Amino acid sequence: MASEETKQVNVPGDVAPAVPGNASVQQASASEASTQGKEELNPDGTPLSDKQRRKRAEKAEKERVKAEKAARLAAEQEARQAAEVDYAADNYGVLPMNQSQEKTNEQLMAIEDIHPDKDGQPITMLARLQTSRSPSAKLVFLTFRQTMHCVQATLAVTPEKVSRQMTKWAASITPESIVRVEGTITKVPKPVESPSVTVKEAEIKISRIFVAVPVTWEGQIPFYVDDATRSDAEIEASQDTPRPLPPIALDTRLDNRVLDLRTTTNQAIFRLNHGICRLFREFLENNGFIEIHTPKLQGAATESGASVFKVDYFKGNAFLAQSPQLAKQMAIAADFGRVYEIGPVFRAEDSNTNRHMTEFTGLDLEMAFQEHYHEVVDLLNQLFMYIFSELPKRYSAEIATVRRQYPADDFLVPEAPVRLDFREAIQMLRDAGYEVNDLDDLSTETERALGKIVRDKYKTDFYAVDKFPLDIRPFYTMPDANDKRYSNSYDFFMRGQEILSGAQRVHDAKFLEERLAQAQIPVSAMKHYVDAFRLGAPPHAGGGIGLERVLMLYLGLGNIRRVSLFPRDPKRLEP
Amino acid sequence: MASEETKQVNVPGDVAPAVPGNASVQQASASEASTQGKEELNPDGTPLSDKQRRKRAEKAEKERVKAEKAARLAAEQEARQAAEVDYAADNYGVLPMNQSQEKTNEQLMAIEDIHPDKDGQPITMLARLQTSRSPSAKLVFLTFRQTMHCVQATLAVTPEKVSRQMTKWAASITPESIVRVEGTITKVPKPVESPSVTVKEAEIKISRIFVAVPVTWEGQIPFYVDDATRSDAEIEASQDTPRPLPPIALDTRLDNRVLDLRTTTNQAIFRLNHGICRLFREFLENNGFIEIHTPKLQGAATESGASVFKVDYFKGNAFLAQSPQLAKQMAIAADFGRVYEIGPVFRAEDSNTNRHMTEFTGLDLEMAFQEHYHEVVDLLNQLFMYIFSELPKRYSAEIATVRRQYPADDFLVPEAPVRLDFREAIQMLRDAGYEVNDLDDLSTETERALGKIVRDKYKTDFYAVDKFPLDIRPFYTMPDANDKRYSNSYDFFMRGQEILSGAQRVHDAKFLEERLAQAQIPVSAMKHYVDAFRLGAPPHAGGGIGLERVLMLYLGLGNIRRVSLFPRDPKRLEP
Repeated sequence: MASEETKQVNVPGDVAPAVPGNASVQQASASEASTQGKEELNPDGTPLSDKQRRKRAEKAEKERVKAEKAARLAAEQEARQAAEVDYAADNYGVLPMNQSQEKTNEQLMAIEDIHPDKDGQPITMLARLQTSRSPSAKLVFLTFRQTMHCVQATLAVTPEKVSRQMTKWAASITPESIVRVEGTITKVPKPVESPSVTVKEAEIKISRIFVAVPVTWEGQIPFYVDDATRSDAEIEASQDTPRPLPPIALDTRLDNRVLDLRTTTNQAIFRLNHGICRLFREFLENNGFIEIHTPKLQGAATESGASVFKVDYFKGNAFLAQSPQLAKQMAIAADFGRVYEIGPVFRAEDSNTNRHMTEFTGLDLEMAFQEHYHEVVDLLNQLFMYIFSELPKRYSAEIATVRRQYPADDFLVPEAPVRLDFREAIQMLRDAGYEVNDLDDLSTETERALGKIVRDKYKTDFYAVDKFPLDIRPFYTMPDANDKRYSNSYDFFMRGQEILSGAQRVHDAKFLEERLAQAQIPVSAMKHYVDAFRLGAPPHAGGGIGLERVLMLYLGLGNIRRVSLFPRDPKRLEP
Repeated sequence: MASEETKQVNVPGDVAPAVPGNASVQQASASEASTQGKEELNPDGTPLSDKQRRKRAEKAEKERVKAEKAARLAAEQEARQAAEVDYAADNYGVLPMNQSQEKTNEQLMAIEDIHPDKDGQPITMLARLQTSRSPSAKLVFLTFRQTMHCVQATLAVTPEKVSRQMTKWAASITPESIVRVEGTITKVPKPVESPSVTVKEAEIKISRIFVAVPVTWEGQIPFYVDDATRSDAEIEASQDTPRPLPPIALDTRLDNRVLDLRTTTNQAIFRLNHGICRLFREFLENNGFIEIHTPKLQGAATESGASVFKVDYFKGNAFLAQSPQLAKQMAIAADFGRVYEIGPVFRAEDSNTNRHMTEFTGLDLEMAFQEHYHEVVDLLNQLFMYIFSELPKRYSAEIATVRRQYPADDFLVPEAPVRLDFREAIQMLRDAGYEVNDLDDLSTETERALGKIVRDKYKTDFYAVDKFPLDIRPFYTMPDANDKRYSNSYDFFMRGQEILSGAQRVHDAKFLEERLAQAQIPVSAMKHYVDAFRLGAPPHAGGGIGLERVLMLYLGLGNIRRVSLFPRDPKRLEP
């Protein structure tokens, strides 16, 4: 740090003004001087008596003298302070913009690594300022954050290192600024109570503090990350206290998503998002799958023109793939055997619900099987069981962090896979009093009802329904060999909501043409797809998983937008 | 298999007619009967003499009698054969369409696992028929393929198991059909010579053969996979022989991409494609990176309206992201620290070159650094060195498979990273006789020239150029602290072509606004992006890698379309 000292600039004025919530901020108290040049009256409108006037004048004169004296004392004190050499001048301030001026290879510490065992050890770190509170001019309490970790710190005036100017300046730093802190790790006598502080048994005694990156937001920042991390219960409980906590609406969060994503909760959510992708790949790669990248720009509207986005493509048009369905099947016809893709899928549906987006991440897979599509269903079951068993092992801290803000029932997984025949599911719904037709699709309502029935009966939030009626599935679905009204297709569910849809596909070109004709789709519209089967394709099955749905339902969150980094829906294209 | 026997259907007529190249196909020889009702003349136009006429008539009569006799004998033989019980009837035929009728859990063998040590062992497998040749009515030579592996097989008439009807039928199976083969692994006396056969020391003696999935292409299939796997050298060498091999144009391949992808070469290329992604992720995950998924649908044209695709978005418009640049930087402002993404990027550029596509796979990463952007440059160097050192270890078979068709110089990697300052690169080009300006960008030509110079000097095909002139880089590039004409930006090269572009980004909101003003981009067009920096973003740098370029250049292939599953360019949106 020595070499940087010469460059640091002490320009407290450059720091954005402190915002409410920082108790240290000097409230500009309105002076109560009497109004001038206007005749004073009694409250009932009558003029004041002479006695009243004399008393008032005496009082005003006393106040004037008192105020004058106070002002003179304050000015004197300020002048003294200004004249006074700030012995802490080198210990705080704003650092110049980093332009990679130098490389010192200095070791910084992570908040995560702070531990009471390190009591007395020095620490230097870069972190976000989350909150600050100054109960007196000589003392500031601060909390700092790095991703999922928060620590508290104290800055107190000392005769040699920390001046009053320094505490005053530190108390004025805008939350969310990135600060460089030097100090000492100190074991605390009893665990820190504040729920937002994750380092419970140690804090930092600050000796030097610098702003590395200031916040330059005009006016008050949209919300405080600390506030954005509170649970509904905490907010509700505060409503009858002198300091009710502000709830922050989802739209406000999404409008200011960068700020919102800084909460420890969101840091955890997107680590879990990555975790699911990682486990998905790990399992599939260990089972002989190859990752592919299929084009999102398509020459024709793939399934039905109504639900695909149209793109200006040079002098013509292209369409955005609403899934890698056709391309991944063509990869199977091209002998890749077992393929997967993680990529964006686009849905031009004007659905404004809690579980639909216009762009989401598809976890797609497709595989040639040897004899029976249940080989694929079994593999899918194993895949999910792998994800559900590994997540709590590898990401327990992340899950606990999310649960603090969003408590939810644990996600129940079965001992052995639960796979219901569609007819069985219909019967279970009927037994529970629902009126359902044999060959109709499940509705959102009956899906959820089935979820509850299955949870009660099998103690699981995860299960599959097999053998859906043929007519409610896409043209490329293989009919059941024994009963043409049904098909070799399946959905997987979490907490009563569909997260995967899949099937054995029609791999026989002639039969595929029949199915297209029945669906009234001209073969010409799907020439290259049908050609792939004319060249011979092995029997195959697969499925498409909605990543965000899996994460939302695993955590029991109520809105899919919470698990999408920058969600897109019919009304939201930014940020 | 026993249970399937009762279901198999012997309908040779259902198999598509055999195509040229199968020597067994009976060529319909045009009969040479004399022309009728037309006076014959001598070659000089004079009428024939009586003697000539008589001789001709006698000859014609003899031929008629001979032909009649031959026809009668053939008809008799056919009748005999038809009447004859085919003792091999259960050993060949076409299987019914797989509708997942049953599950026997039968063990099939992979071609990859065939080994001379297994001499005499039985084998059952499903494979593509690649070629067949029938030197006599009693014998058929076939080759079978599974992904990167090919094996040869023999079907010969035997008194009890294999009939002439069976060999005739087997010889007529269209290449690319998926067949089920039963037989015996047999060690061969000397290694198989054919370059397309990968199992060199064993073959299969076939006892039963069934078509599991027929080819139903109308007429001749576009090309044979065997032909599509040959090297240029092999094709050239054949041109002066009686059987010149057909070269297959890239466009023909891409028009029939599913067929083309079945070559062992392409099977290897796309395993390497996956390999690079896997190593990219592995390295980054081991270095604390989090995978993110940023939206491809953007509310505004991100960098310049000219090169982004416009999408109809409900009643308005959206634009396809030409990179995750803005979103990944916003993820850094949101404290994710180190992020990566593998996903499609879209370029609406009407470039019809060997190295441009309108959609390709971006390997993007971005990271907050502590002091200096060279922390990121160093990490990028380590990342590539990891990929280049692991690829030949884990994918040697794939690389060798590609090299058989596309021989290329080995890709040279340096012992220590090579990072040239831009000014140094300019000087090296000048020393080699190129006229280059101090602050102009490198051209395709000078890039390639530099590649050769660096290869000669440092014995490497991989290197970085650092400190590009500021004016040729995007507005978000951080200027060099010591010389404002230059910047903290870098490109990485393979064999003289750029594969990564990156930089330290401007993280200071006020300075970013200045840079936007200089670039004449209104802040309003990038509000959410600029807002992210107003909330404070750490110093950061990153880069975007073109996956297909890395793979193309590593293998020394000449066209980027060869390494894209279903490539997209201004003229190609299908398949």
